[in-house]
Amino acid sequence: MQKKKEIKVLGNNNYPIGIFDSGFGGLTVMSAINKVLPSENLIYFGDTAHVPYGAKSRDTIVRFSKDIISFLIKNKAKLIVVACNTVSALALPVLEKILKIPPIIGVIEPGVRVAIDASKSFRIGIIGTEGTIKSKSYPKAINKLVKAKVYQQACPLLVPLVEEGLIDGEITDKVVKKYIKPLLAKKIDTLVLGCTHYPFLRKILEKNLDKNIIVVDSAISTALEVKLILDKKFLFASKNGKKYLKFYVSDNPEKFKKIGMRFFSKDITIIKKVDLVG
Amino acid sequence: MQKKKEIKVLGNNNYPIGIFDSGFGGLTVMSAINKVLPSENLIYFGDTAHVPYGAKSRDTIVRFSKDIISFLIKNKAKLIVVACNTVSALALPVLEKILKIPPIIGVIEPGVRVAIDASKSFRIGIIGTEGTIKSKSYPKAINKLVKAKVYQQACPLLVPLVEEGLIDGEITDKVVKKYIKPLLAKKIDTLVLGCTHYPFLRKILEKNLDKNIIVVDSAISTALEVKLILDKKFLFASKNGKKYLKFYVSDNPEKFKKIGMRFFSKDITIIKKVDLVG
Repeated sequence: MQKKKEIKVLGNNNYPIGIFDSGFGGLTVMSAINKVLPSENLIYFGDTAHVPYGAKSRDTIVRFSKDIISFLIKNKAKLIVVACNTVSALALPVLEKILKIPPIIGVIEPGVRVAIDASKSFRIGIIGTEGTIKSKSYPKAINKLVKAKVYQQACPLLVPLVEEGLIDGEITDKVVKKYIKPLLAKKIDTLVLGCTHYPFLRKILEKNLDKNIIVVDSAISTALEVKLILDKKFLFASKNGKKYLKFYVSDNPEKFKKIGMRFFSKDITIIKKVDLVG
Repeated sequence: MQKKKEIKVLGNNNYPIGIFDSGFGGLTVMSAINKVLPSENLIYFGDTAHVPYGAKSRDTIVRFSKDIISFLIKNKAKLIVVACNTVSALALPVLEKILKIPPIIGVIEPGVRVAIDASKSFRIGIIGTEGTIKSKSYPKAINKLVKAKVYQQACPLLVPLVEEGLIDGEITDKVVKKYIKPLLAKKIDTLVLGCTHYPFLRKILEKNLDKNIIVVDSAISTALEVKLILDKKFLFASKNGKKYLKFYVSDNPEKFKKIGMRFFSKDITIIKKVDLVG
């Protein structure tokens, strides 16, 4: 049955899923997609020449994202996953408009559904970059579905900490405490990691939270969303094909490999530097 | 006499001095140039779409710098000041080769001369970005002039802290302590702020150093170097012209204005966003 479906879509089922982020963060999403969809070919783009995105403007984020998407399409992506909350928050609506094929999905809606599922008191905390928080994408997405109290906190130092590999230790602990404090005062029962870099800090975050607070990241739920779309569009890869994971960065492939390996569950073997003009 | 010299150089004496950096950091150098040369017109470019530069590769830094220099030349810069240690360390030799006119100067050599002047024991500490430290530009430049023990420390978190305006407080204090500790153990008597962002952290750095350690930044000494070159090339602006300071950024002019104002001694009034394609 699956095979019949594949023929319908011009034989591009074994084309890869394209995933992108400003740096390492999106590897958390790639890792989840790889777990949920082990037969799929995946290509990842980390925009390490322009990292971090968090404090940059909508115009600039849209410009960077368009270039990356062009690159992924040239590399035959059958579906594009925006594995970055800042891009999802600031640029996804624009990108969706210009991009009819392939389909594109972000990380905010999937994360929001998990958070609503998890929360009992509907007092939900969001941490994210300056851009994500200012866009109010999370409160809007949550309140479209339920009536909830949403408390936001921008955490501009967390991405630099993760990009430097400082995922524990005294400094990171102090930074986390500072950001979490006002949310704890609001008696949240659910905390959304509104940035794909933050799952790397999950341990140190959980250490600083009350035990009853549920921490939500959107990686698995985004991966499940990808699965749903592939199913709907008859786009599953065949199980017999030769599977590959490829990584591209706009700068410093060596550093990406070194730090990425610590975070990504699989080996980062094929990695190339690509100059984008954006 | 001065007027006669001006005529010799095709009347471009009132053209501006072009100054650039990845973000706010170079404002420390601009401020010094403005003090030392109050009659000069100055234009500043902060590459806030690509900030930070510190962990990015030589190729990428050269590519960004070339685009900025083209912009400054289009805006008639009579002299270019690389107000960024990472660019000075990684890209200046390449940029000097491709750029015959106007003259271009960096911040490392001027800083090194002050450090050698200040040090008695010739045990000199250098703090800078990953790129600057890895390039070994400081130890090389110092040891070209004197035989000294040079101890280096990369401080990847200091630029993000300054760019977020966190120039004091407990977190910045912890970060500074961590970076400074190994240098104190080496009994340095002079510490070079090898990044134009670091003078914003001078107070908190000095608080954490032994009192006998002299802190050196290259801003004033770079400004004096600029003065020397203008003198040598008969390029001083006339004292009667209408003086201007202009600021350009590749992203977020509002943020630049808000944080820049805190740091720059003069008002940041004329500020424009420019899209570079690099």
